[in-house]
Amino acid sequence: MAVTLKDVAQAANLSVASVSRILTNRGRYSENTAKRVRQLAQEMGYFKNQSAADLASKTSRAVGVVVPLIHTTFGDEVIKGLYEATMSSGYELLITYIDDDEKHQTQVFNTLLTRQVGAVFLLSLDIPEWLMNQLAAENVTVISLTTILNDRISAVTSNEFTMMDTLVDYLTKKGHTNIALIGDTKLTTNISSVRRRNFIESMKQHQLTIENAFFYGEDHSYETGYRSVTEGYDIDALPFTAVIATADLVGIGLVNALTDANKNVPKDLSITTIDGMKLTEISRPGLTTIQQNFTEIGRIAMNLFIENNIDKQQKIIYVPTKLVERESVATIK
Amino acid sequence: MAVTLKDVAQAANLSVASVSRILTNRGRYSENTAKRVRQLAQEMGYFKNQSAADLASKTSRAVGVVVPLIHTTFGDEVIKGLYEATMSSGYELLITYIDDDEKHQTQVFNTLLTRQVGAVFLLSLDIPEWLMNQLAAENVTVISLTTILNDRISAVTSNEFTMMDTLVDYLTKKGHTNIALIGDTKLTTNISSVRRRNFIESMKQHQLTIENAFFYGEDHSYETGYRSVTEGYDIDALPFTAVIATADLVGIGLVNALTDANKNVPKDLSITTIDGMKLTEISRPGLTTIQQNFTEIGRIAMNLFIENNIDKQQKIIYVPTKLVERESVATIK
Repeated sequence: MAVTLKDVAQAANLSVASVSRILTNRGRYSENTAKRVRQLAQEMGYFKNQSAADLASKTSRAVGVVVPLIHTTFGDEVIKGLYEATMSSGYELLITYIDDDEKHQTQVFNTLLTRQVGAVFLLSLDIPEWLMNQLAAENVTVISLTTILNDRISAVTSNEFTMMDTLVDYLTKKGHTNIALIGDTKLTTNISSVRRRNFIESMKQHQLTIENAFFYGEDHSYETGYRSVTEGYDIDALPFTAVIATADLVGIGLVNALTDANKNVPKDLSITTIDGMKLTEISRPGLTTIQQNFTEIGRIAMNLFIENNIDKQQKIIYVPTKLVERESVATIK
Repeated sequence: MAVTLKDVAQAANLSVASVSRILTNRGRYSENTAKRVRQLAQEMGYFKNQSAADLASKTSRAVGVVVPLIHTTFGDEVIKGLYEATMSSGYELLITYIDDDEKHQTQVFNTLLTRQVGAVFLLSLDIPEWLMNQLAAENVTVISLTTILNDRISAVTSNEFTMMDTLVDYLTKKGHTNIALIGDTKLTTNISSVRRRNFIESMKQHQLTIENAFFYGEDHSYETGYRSVTEGYDIDALPFTAVIATADLVGIGLVNALTDANKNVPKDLSITTIDGMKLTEISRPGLTTIQQNFTEIGRIAMNLFIENNIDKQQKIIYVPTKLVERESVATIK
């Protein structure tokens, strides 16, 4: 016989409602009582059958996070923020990974949706239109993290234009006029084409033209950074004096390519990155970067959902970013 | 009215059993039929109610993974392996994070156990005894990944002694006799004390004594590596000539501390690491490392469960590791 909530309540000499509140971390209760109830529940081998509870209430207190299988390290920071906000509110966080395979995508979203999650967080995920429509048809809150997907889905993110513009402004003030955007600069995805557009727009606002702008690469990898100056351009005659790397790892690839060719950063090339994770701090030289607050993005997104602040209207929340100056940019006379 | 499996089956002119097989990726079916059924199900807005299905079958086809909130990057590699094996078998992967808070731990394991997962994978997670007992009481397969927890729980892992011994052997053959273990060397957790013991044992087997062995640090962090030679020992008079770092990031901390003090790696200090992730490749100099195959650990563990190869008997499966030689070790004359 399975142990029921009622059994635990009787043993604890409390109402079923009180025990339920405690075991799901909802509402108010004294920590002493809670401790006693949790211990009792454990000793008696009680586990609330969540499938039954989900079924009865039609929605569960779970939220889902969908993370690309190949993701940059900042994913962990975002999840940390989501986790903290989830734990303190008694919600449950179910994380699933996803790749580009359409069949797998159906499978993964099924995993979450069939468990009646109250919200789905897309972590830096550019999903196809058919999947978007499917999500819209479900009665589930969808929030995109670190990127704006379209004009319907709410998002918590850094301001992409501000980030790009801060770096362009910083570099031009140091005398740089020929600047390369290196990393994921392809036009086929939403996220990368927005960055490319922002870069061009910011260059224009700084009285520079498209002839001052250079592009290389189709992904955020170390290898793309390395190859940009060893295969893409002639390292002995670079047409640009500064780089904005679309991710930290791209910047490290650039530093290593120059180091391996006995060149000096920043004397021979100035390097900046977008993201500002630990890597930029442990790089030699340290990398100047526009730093995103990923943990805060996760925390704010979760609280937004918990406080029921997401409705049918699209909501975009920008989390401030910070320019961190280190040793990777030279001043051009 | 919710769309049922029967509705989809009727529209597709197939049996309910066939449609069920297709939508849960079980058994055999033609890919053409499957495509048509998935499209129909999507158009009709059908989602199998997994909570109801879980309840009916008492177990779901989901497996849970528990990941420490503060984890090293190899966690993603392990999950990649689990994911690949899961997707090709039609299982579902539910990932949860966990921290050291006892209340949160109860909450997180509840999240998984109440969803009737068939297995729980602990990813490099040293859980307290009370939680271990609770898991043992549930009818759920528990597999520890990358570490052996005790003499009951099955594990898929690298062979810790082999890894340590390979590095000690490599360093002694290069003429090093005084060697430091730096990183997580504390005696209070299972994983770190095993490494410490293995280090001492391997030193003995190489005719070295405890006086040749040095220890520093209580975690796998960059800072611990950096401080070991700036605060722990006098960088101008190190009592050891080589280091085994318990994680890649610790090794990077050491390299930077020496670089910042105008010292040379490996001339002034030889550095090796355990793990062998990307970081060791992009470090300058490249770091010699004993490389674990984390993706394979995840893949093997998942297949072990799927093929029903885990029973009450503890099973330990060792996944081979590989010594990767780079430029961070000098030969002592």
